[in-house]
Amino acid sequence: MKKGQDVLIDSITKGLLEGNRRDLAKGITLIESSAAKHYQLGQELLKQISPHSGNSIRIGITGVPGAGKSTFIEAFGEILCSSGHKVAVLAIDPTSTITGGSILGDKTRMETLSRNPQAFVRPSPTAGTLGGVHRKTRETIALCEAAGYDVILIETVGVGQSEVIVRGMVDFFMLLAITGAGDELQGMKKGIIELADAIVVNKADGKNKSVAEKTKREFNQILHFLQPATKGWQTKAYTCSSLKNEGLVELWELISAFQQKMKESGVFQERRQTQSKEWLHSLIKDRLLTSFFSQENIKKQLPLFEKDVMNGEITASQAMEKLFYLFSDN
Amino acid sequence: MKKGQDVLIDSITKGLLEGNRRDLAKGITLIESSAAKHYQLGQELLKQISPHSGNSIRIGITGVPGAGKSTFIEAFGEILCSSGHKVAVLAIDPTSTITGGSILGDKTRMETLSRNPQAFVRPSPTAGTLGGVHRKTRETIALCEAAGYDVILIETVGVGQSEVIVRGMVDFFMLLAITGAGDELQGMKKGIIELADAIVVNKADGKNKSVAEKTKREFNQILHFLQPATKGWQTKAYTCSSLKNEGLVELWELISAFQQKMKESGVFQERRQTQSKEWLHSLIKDRLLTSFFSQENIKKQLPLFEKDVMNGEITASQAMEKLFYLFSDN
Repeated sequence: MKKGQDVLIDSITKGLLEGNRRDLAKGITLIESSAAKHYQLGQELLKQISPHSGNSIRIGITGVPGAGKSTFIEAFGEILCSSGHKVAVLAIDPTSTITGGSILGDKTRMETLSRNPQAFVRPSPTAGTLGGVHRKTRETIALCEAAGYDVILIETVGVGQSEVIVRGMVDFFMLLAITGAGDELQGMKKGIIELADAIVVNKADGKNKSVAEKTKREFNQILHFLQPATKGWQTKAYTCSSLKNEGLVELWELISAFQQKMKESGVFQERRQTQSKEWLHSLIKDRLLTSFFSQENIKKQLPLFEKDVMNGEITASQAMEKLFYLFSDN
Repeated sequence: MKKGQDVLIDSITKGLLEGNRRDLAKGITLIESSAAKHYQLGQELLKQISPHSGNSIRIGITGVPGAGKSTFIEAFGEILCSSGHKVAVLAIDPTSTITGGSILGDKTRMETLSRNPQAFVRPSPTAGTLGGVHRKTRETIALCEAAGYDVILIETVGVGQSEVIVRGMVDFFMLLAITGAGDELQGMKKGIIELADAIVVNKADGKNKSVAEKTKREFNQILHFLQPATKGWQTKAYTCSSLKNEGLVELWELISAFQQKMKESGVFQERRQTQSKEWLHSLIKDRLLTSFFSQENIKKQLPLFEKDVMNGEITASQAMEKLFYLFSDN
């Protein structure tokens, strides 16, 4: 590595550890960059700040579009900031990796919180595969922690695979729901409820309050039948109003109680260790799959073999053998 | 390939296509063998019989231990045989791949059905990884179909990952349940209900009958909130008694109606094509992972890197890079 780059990384590291937002943003940009030299610098930075990361509670928040995630995060984040916390808001947006657009992470959606000096709101990385976005988000968490953010909120849309990814990187996972549980659940990808440490029925205000209470009870009924997402913790449903700032302080108390209980039982540390190990395995898997599927002749031949297998012209085993012959030939 | 082996495969193929059980068993043994030359012969056999496979309804059956799966399959299989069907019973046993033992597939558990000339009961392959067992079962299905079995029952224990694998190889997936839904569900791995095309509450006889009806209603309540496993099909709960032979004919009528409806809508064929494609991808993935994780220096170094990552001594990305350096060095 060149001398100038060492100096650059040292300077970013220093600024970042002092909580300088511009250095944090620079660091994240390096990590998100698809240029090889930026990536290398980003990895070097990560290595340096690594001993200072980990001191936070990582909270995942999901919910179908319309559940009021942005408004909730603004209100919840403001409360945390005003009681002395430093809050980082990140997002994993599975739609952005498909469409190139983004339905999350739009900075302007959280205008008030974005301007709060105690908060750091980062739009979701839009480039690359879900696996790539996954890596970038995990590494961004580490940078934010090193910069002194002690509450990390990771937002995602309730549409499927990304919930499992977010569950794999957070301590506490929350499902934001709204009234009309039946319809709500219909639109929700399977199994998401079972990842949650709390279901929070949002918009429990005005005329909607009693309906929200009813929805809460319905969720509690279903939860009764499901295994808890975290060993030693009973997932329950709650209500809140982001608009009226109701139920948010109680929610933070719940998360704090969760954190304390899970640290005492060791489940907290255990989960983080398991997450790190699984993270290593997922990086290995991604790298192996990428090296195979990004090879030119595989890219060209795979769709033809798929078609033949789907039409029953050759067996899947035969197709696999032939593809590996092409792969190793390269 | 040697002349003698060609003759062997031709002879097995011929016998198998005529429905000879000994040739079918020989074919499966080749497929299950871990010896490379047997595997090659098995693949050759598969290629030959491939045009004759596919003509069956593939039914997956899961349920917690104690749900009465063997008794159910015996009773259900007997009814199908007596109405002219040829029934093959296979099993995927996730426990056997871990412990080397087997809690399923014990031939003696289905004594009556095993002796029925219209039925073929095969114990689960116990050797190898879950991925390997997966391959063997898929290929055994093809052999059974080519041998004229038009109903394939694939049994698995309701403990997790194997349900997803079985769902990926069957047309119709059934969850066998018993009364006491709360406890039943507690013991069940998450998300299995949502894979099912029918939930069948077994042991609905004698004093247990009214409780079973109640359990059925409870399941229907939960199902109301979940997405159906198959497009255009509403999953519902039913009761049956394997002991009294009650509800089994109705269940077969349900499966037949499912098959007809799904063939008319094209969902049946579509799912089979998707399954074939996913099967190819899963073979590729297995091969890639095996080639990595079975390499000697990776096997030796991986646990050390895992430990370092878990203790936060190096980042997961660093560990991954170092492992790939070791891998490509070999």
